[in-house]
Amino acid sequence: MISKKMLDLGTKRSVIRDIFEYGNKLAKEIGAENVLDFSLGNPSTPAPREVANTIKYMVEGLSPKDYNSYTSSAGDTDTRLEVAKNLNKRFSTDYTDKNIFMTCGASASLNIIFKAIIESDDEIIVNIPYFPEYKVFIEGQGGKPVFAKCSENLCLDISEIENKINENTKAILINSPNNPSGVIYPKENLSALTELLERKQNEYSHPIFLISDEPYRELVFTDEKPEFLPNLYNNTLVAYSWSKSLSLPGERIGYILVPNKVKNHEDVFATVGGAARVLGHVCAPSMFQYVVKSCVDVEPNIGVYRTNRNILFKELLKMGYTVANPDGAFYMFIKSPNNDGYDFCERAKKYHMLLVPGEGFGMKEYVRLSFCVETKKIEKSIDVFKKIISEYDGEK
Amino acid sequence: MISKKMLDLGTKRSVIRDIFEYGNKLAKEIGAENVLDFSLGNPSTPAPREVANTIKYMVEGLSPKDYNSYTSSAGDTDTRLEVAKNLNKRFSTDYTDKNIFMTCGASASLNIIFKAIIESDDEIIVNIPYFPEYKVFIEGQGGKPVFAKCSENLCLDISEIENKINENTKAILINSPNNPSGVIYPKENLSALTELLERKQNEYSHPIFLISDEPYRELVFTDEKPEFLPNLYNNTLVAYSWSKSLSLPGERIGYILVPNKVKNHEDVFATVGGAARVLGHVCAPSMFQYVVKSCVDVEPNIGVYRTNRNILFKELLKMGYTVANPDGAFYMFIKSPNNDGYDFCERAKKYHMLLVPGEGFGMKEYVRLSFCVETKKIEKSIDVFKKIISEYDGEK
Repeated sequence: MISKKMLDLGTKRSVIRDIFEYGNKLAKEIGAENVLDFSLGNPSTPAPREVANTIKYMVEGLSPKDYNSYTSSAGDTDTRLEVAKNLNKRFSTDYTDKNIFMTCGASASLNIIFKAIIESDDEIIVNIPYFPEYKVFIEGQGGKPVFAKCSENLCLDISEIENKINENTKAILINSPNNPSGVIYPKENLSALTELLERKQNEYSHPIFLISDEPYRELVFTDEKPEFLPNLYNNTLVAYSWSKSLSLPGERIGYILVPNKVKNHEDVFATVGGAARVLGHVCAPSMFQYVVKSCVDVEPNIGVYRTNRNILFKELLKMGYTVANPDGAFYMFIKSPNNDGYDFCERAKKYHMLLVPGEGFGMKEYVRLSFCVETKKIEKSIDVFKKIISEYDGEK
Repeated sequence: MISKKMLDLGTKRSVIRDIFEYGNKLAKEIGAENVLDFSLGNPSTPAPREVANTIKYMVEGLSPKDYNSYTSSAGDTDTRLEVAKNLNKRFSTDYTDKNIFMTCGASASLNIIFKAIIESDDEIIVNIPYFPEYKVFIEGQGGKPVFAKCSENLCLDISEIENKINENTKAILINSPNNPSGVIYPKENLSALTELLERKQNEYSHPIFLISDEPYRELVFTDEKPEFLPNLYNNTLVAYSWSKSLSLPGERIGYILVPNKVKNHEDVFATVGGAARVLGHVCAPSMFQYVVKSCVDVEPNIGVYRTNRNILFKELLKMGYTVANPDGAFYMFIKSPNNDGYDFCERAKKYHMLLVPGEGFGMKEYVRLSFCVETKKIEKSIDVFKKIISEYDGEK
């Protein structure tokens, strides 16, 4: 009577969302200030004031028809030009509006890309650890996700990736800074990947796309900025979102970048348009397209995230935890002392601290902590982490 | 290398959009005031002032986190409750937030519904004349559209529909007030349909959904309001959008209604959630969810549309044109005197009047005119219509 697959996806909800709902319930019982909810990646830093100022200017000074009307399906031309200019300035590229397709955020960007490129039997390589919805998206658009283990420092394991590539490989998906680990893949690591991809493209005589999911590109705590992948590899498609950089997760605004260097880039861009159409995306929300046009150069405010990251990383290392090096994003990926992420989450729960088990991200030894919260909560968590590690020590 | 189907959908763009682009080009050459562009359904009436006022209140009085954050995937609970209350008041129903799933507009609503209900070999009956994207949407979600001819007065032809129903029929799609005709299906016509559907459900022992696409529900020029289909038939799913009623086409905000009377309604609602997830819809744009919460009772301003409709309908009938009775929406469906809509559009083009040929809507004898424009343009068009009909008369 209805699609069983969709029913499954609608009832077996994401683990992260379930923990988040539990946190809300708990907050009502014992008070929000007593729950250390580190489950969701909902930015704690509000959108920069330029966003509200731009909106205020629009509603006070313009006719609603100037900002509430349909844009072309690829997005408002001036907005796309401003996005292109911002990229050109920072990454020495030469993009125009014709390279930018505005979307309803990163999930839309990724689904549209998958729908555009996937043909039957196509495989998409996904690097562990990964955002759990990738699996849903790839399968939903008819592809087969193939998971590649990471290196010991949670970077790309090139020989593992080589083993996974075959003639059905349509693309490899990269997410750096990474959710859930915060790791930024270093340049040598990425160069090794792109060399491998060049070689394999030649071997199989068809393009292998590098899909770069970059919602955290601007959230970086080191001086060295992440590599801009289209500058390393021609067949790169970028999925971007302002959800995290401008703290606009609810507004659903992002884009797909199709550089001219992509093989048959005009066809690929048109295909992206066809896929967006079929997925029910008429255009990205218009008012926020204009917001982005005005705010594209605004730097994200990462002060609180940096403070939280520094406190927590230092303290956890001191206590003896194994933690991935979170150079970007706002997540920390922590190894459970007994290599059982579920067990660690259960112990944390007793202290009203909510973490996400690593299994959904492809590494069941770990737990994910979102530190996009008030610093007070991070400080409160230190004691809990101490208690948990002494529990484990006591059991040895 | 890429999906040929998506490339096709991205390159063979909608006829309506192509005419619209031509109109923009022409406007640059001869001045916008000299182009009678009746191609697109982009509301000429701006959003009511309550919308801008609500937004102003938000950006001045609230923290951005109150309106820019993720909502639950089905939408903000209070917004859904307000939508439900509005429906309950007008249609004597008893909906709650649990019946309303907020979406990115009608295209999203329809695609999500199709993705949720379509299983292999499923057929969806579409009534002629119809919005051309229905075909794209149904096929895109794996279904087979089956087109049913209309009666002479452009209403539902019940025996034609009966002939099209078979054991693979999953749903029938209704759009009243209709795009492109403006026709509102009368109660007897709808009752005959629902009786047929009840009978066929029993015959095939599985539900046949009635999908009601209602973006024009509030744009009605008669005293009698359109029937509310969930009150006539239990297995009704409603796709709604505020694009036309609040003049917010670019903002992408609408909902799906799953009434409790739908068989297994909880499962159907969950399935809608699963389908939204797979189509890349994380949540409807949050700020406009809150706008809708505050503006759900605002009546649309249809004054200009009514004036345009009255002038045009009267004058065209006087000249001898055959025109569907546009009781709602903002379209007029006009029969070409030689039964060739393309020919009529070409003749109109010579006078810089842009109409859409009827073939894409399933009736090649007709042309569609969107009268959501300034009244001045409607007045200017009268002379052009006179010239065209005398051309045809001279050729007899």
